[in-house]
Amino acid sequence: MKNYIITAQDIEGMEKQFRTELVNSLPGFKSATLIGTVNAEGQTNLAVFSSFIHIGSNPPLFGFITRPTSVPRHTYLNIKSTGFFTANHIHPEIYQAAHQTSARYPENISEFDATGLTPEFSPNFPAPFVKESRIKLALEFVEEHPIAINGTILVIGKLCEAHFPEEILGKDGLLHIEKAASLTISGLDVYHYPQKIARLSYAKTDRPLQIRED
Amino acid sequence: MKNYIITAQDIEGMEKQFRTELVNSLPGFKSATLIGTVNAEGQTNLAVFSSFIHIGSNPPLFGFITRPTSVPRHTYLNIKSTGFFTANHIHPEIYQAAHQTSARYPENISEFDATGLTPEFSPNFPAPFVKESRIKLALEFVEEHPIAINGTILVIGKLCEAHFPEEILGKDGLLHIEKAASLTISGLDVYHYPQKIARLSYAKTDRPLQIRED
Repeated sequence: MKNYIITAQDIEGMEKQFRTELVNSLPGFKSATLIGTVNAEGQTNLAVFSSFIHIGSNPPLFGFITRPTSVPRHTYLNIKSTGFFTANHIHPEIYQAAHQTSARYPENISEFDATGLTPEFSPNFPAPFVKESRIKLALEFVEEHPIAINGTILVIGKLCEAHFPEEILGKDGLLHIEKAASLTISGLDVYHYPQKIARLSYAKTDRPLQIRED
Repeated sequence: MKNYIITAQDIEGMEKQFRTELVNSLPGFKSATLIGTVNAEGQTNLAVFSSFIHIGSNPPLFGFITRPTSVPRHTYLNIKSTGFFTANHIHPEIYQAAHQTSARYPENISEFDATGLTPEFSPNFPAPFVKESRIKLALEFVEEHPIAINGTILVIGKLCEAHFPEEILGKDGLLHIEKAASLTISGLDVYHYPQKIARLSYAKTDRPLQIRED
């Protein structure tokens, strides 16, 4: 295998779309998440994100990166206005509808209506879930961090509720998310179905790893 | 499929390890990344992370979440002390060694030595790459954001160099990272190999999505 070495200067000199594709490929595989929100007038919004991450387990915290001035800005404004959002996993039957939410719909069009995905509401929670999704989180906004160097924002939410199929929950708390066919994204627009290789034991300095069967 | 609905209160009442497994499963698939650093005395360090994400493309920025007081604290201290780190994709031939870096080795033991992975240096860049990795990034620390609610830290680096096999670079800049067998992680310790379903066209409001062949 011949290796390319590309420098920061090379990247700076690249045509914009080429750079965007390349740099979005570099971090590896990313979560595939539909973030659902609603504005003060009750208008729902849905947008696909690939930066949704675990921030902590106790309390259960998750975050994602958004740009306040780009397409999914309604997501950010709605979260700031209502304080709530949902995060919904994407599976093979809805990935095309999920990707379609990234089109630049006018503010008065809900991406639910435009893509055929169904808003679903849980009692006492204002933001819409995606009914067709199999793993769904209800989150309350707790903190945001504007990134000085490029104007993006890390938005952090605390888990209020998690919905998932009973049969994917392992005895020790692990969700076997591959059984719900959750997908992963590479680059900007490539969807992948992960196949499990192995679960490994907790790493210790004084004994070899083992492959777990649970 | 019967659905479970678990609330924040349910999670608060869970046994710690069960909660950790469950909450780490909820965000979906995550990047599988080895972060390489060196301290002021030249001692190398290597640690596996699953929160490495894209923050922006121009300039090319990436970030990850760390806990200053937990196992991979050497990573954070070394980045603060030297200003540099590497991020290296994990493939099937090295995932067990990668996972083993999460064992609590004493500070004077390099995880490279302990796991058999090979440190590799690029001219004028102080932090070690993982020689066996196929996609490698050299990064310069630019910004950090302490998360108030749980004491974790978002560490942000700017790309200095990217190394990858020539044959995975597409004509438009996309890296076909599945051809380098990059892996993804679910939960704390489950490694998966993603299989490509499809690349989708840029979403527009006035035309249906197409499956791209490039």
